[in-house]
Amino acid sequence: MSDKELTPGRHLIYMEWYSRDVGGLFMKMNRHLFAAKSPYQRIDIFESDFYGRVFSLDGITMTTERDEFMYHEMLVHVPMFMHPNPKKVLVIGGGDGGSVREVLKHPTVEKVVMCEIDELVVKAAKEYLHYTANKLDDPRVELVFEDGSKFVKQFKNEFDVIIIDSTDPTAGQGGHLFTLEFYKACSEALKEDGVFCAQTEGIFYDYEWGATAYRRIKANFPIAKMYLGFMPTYPGGMWSYTFASKAGLDPVKDFNPEKVRNFKEPLRYYNEEVHVAAFALPTFVRKLIED
Amino acid sequence: MSDKELTPGRHLIYMEWYSRDVGGLFMKMNRHLFAAKSPYQRIDIFESDFYGRVFSLDGITMTTERDEFMYHEMLVHVPMFMHPNPKKVLVIGGGDGGSVREVLKHPTVEKVVMCEIDELVVKAAKEYLHYTANKLDDPRVELVFEDGSKFVKQFKNEFDVIIIDSTDPTAGQGGHLFTLEFYKACSEALKEDGVFCAQTEGIFYDYEWGATAYRRIKANFPIAKMYLGFMPTYPGGMWSYTFASKAGLDPVKDFNPEKVRNFKEPLRYYNEEVHVAAFALPTFVRKLIED
Repeated sequence: MSDKELTPGRHLIYMEWYSRDVGGLFMKMNRHLFAAKSPYQRIDIFESDFYGRVFSLDGITMTTERDEFMYHEMLVHVPMFMHPNPKKVLVIGGGDGGSVREVLKHPTVEKVVMCEIDELVVKAAKEYLHYTANKLDDPRVELVFEDGSKFVKQFKNEFDVIIIDSTDPTAGQGGHLFTLEFYKACSEALKEDGVFCAQTEGIFYDYEWGATAYRRIKANFPIAKMYLGFMPTYPGGMWSYTFASKAGLDPVKDFNPEKVRNFKEPLRYYNEEVHVAAFALPTFVRKLIED
Repeated sequence: MSDKELTPGRHLIYMEWYSRDVGGLFMKMNRHLFAAKSPYQRIDIFESDFYGRVFSLDGITMTTERDEFMYHEMLVHVPMFMHPNPKKVLVIGGGDGGSVREVLKHPTVEKVVMCEIDELVVKAAKEYLHYTANKLDDPRVELVFEDGSKFVKQFKNEFDVIIIDSTDPTAGQGGHLFTLEFYKACSEALKEDGVFCAQTEGIFYDYEWGATAYRRIKANFPIAKMYLGFMPTYPGGMWSYTFASKAGLDPVKDFNPEKVRNFKEPLRYYNEEVHVAAFALPTFVRKLIED
């Protein structure tokens, strides 16, 4: 693992081009901590004063330690609080461990299977990302290094909650986690009262993918609803997620805010008001995903 | 007015450093349409395929034609729909005309006074920004080119709605629009049932200003509430606004969604659900502005 320190007083500029090549975010880094090429993708970890450590795959930002809580809390707690009694959870992707960390905050959880295609991502995260640390060593966690789209097919009526924490469909290894067939397999792997949630991309730059993913999920569940959250270091800062329920649970009408108010674990973004508010879509987003 | 066309096939990268010098947004431009130095600031207008025309002051992005509607609709319609019968409106700043355009959609409005310190901003906007066009020539609009913090002091009990559409307190000429004294003068210039709204900065990078502005507004009104909206080309994409009411109107409890549902003018971001949802603050934002 390389560990190059830059000349003190000089900085490395990390630039991420957003989709369509129209622009992007740049961040000032102090050090390039890790660089490697796995069989699947290029992995980099940088360090900076403001963002903390920044983890990227093929040059696309996956997480920064400064704002990863916004993404992980919104992806995980919306489905987790919608399920009456989540015991067995499947996370597909999420090799950095942020989603598993949030799942484990729920005391009903007995087992979390995390299926990440790239073992090197997990190794790098455990060594370099402070928020990953030993979270993936929890005895309730089972790590599987396989293609999630194939892995999920072996299960029928197995999980209470399935969470898709994928990379972008246009980059790296994420494309197979955005197909109609994959979402169907997820639905089948869920128990009858199971709930599902996927990150469904930004809605400002690469907005077609959000609409496509939402429609494909909706085609496989009796109810699917898109919701939004702020995510400053993702393209446009405007991120979408899609919740779905096999039993037809409505994430707003059937939501019990008491459960969140009584939750003992610390949360920094998600709360009972944010849960409901996230489903209120701006008019242009409503139109984008209209059938 | 300069009008430089770049070599076809080559592009200009517009880079905005966010506060704290930690990074920023870059956008690919095709042409640099306008550059001038007024007595107050440097004004630039660029053109690009994705963002449309981009207007900046002292190198800080003020608007892009692609997403200005998100900012202007959230800044203007929250206070406008909270007032029972808004007839006379004061906009301070907002020389690009976007806020006035939104105010004029409300059929009760008889007069909008726009007080912009820099006449050259208005001239450039009218010539180069498609969304400004002839909106500021509406007979209901009165343009005043003065320092808004001085201008507002001459009024007592005069306006139904006051909207602060300022530049950043740390850049250009905006600092005087963030003082305790200025917010006090705004309160005095409002009628007894008047409502107030100000843009109160991003909450991810330059978060101290948001909290400071909110507290200073709150010190001058019986009720003040911060709300958030997506704004992809502003730092972090996570923008804050603060609503206040002289008569103690609560922007959620006293909000009438029917008025929005029956509104005839087209809106692209704001709707009756977004109005309420915007006041649901993520936990870290609640803590940031806690007294």
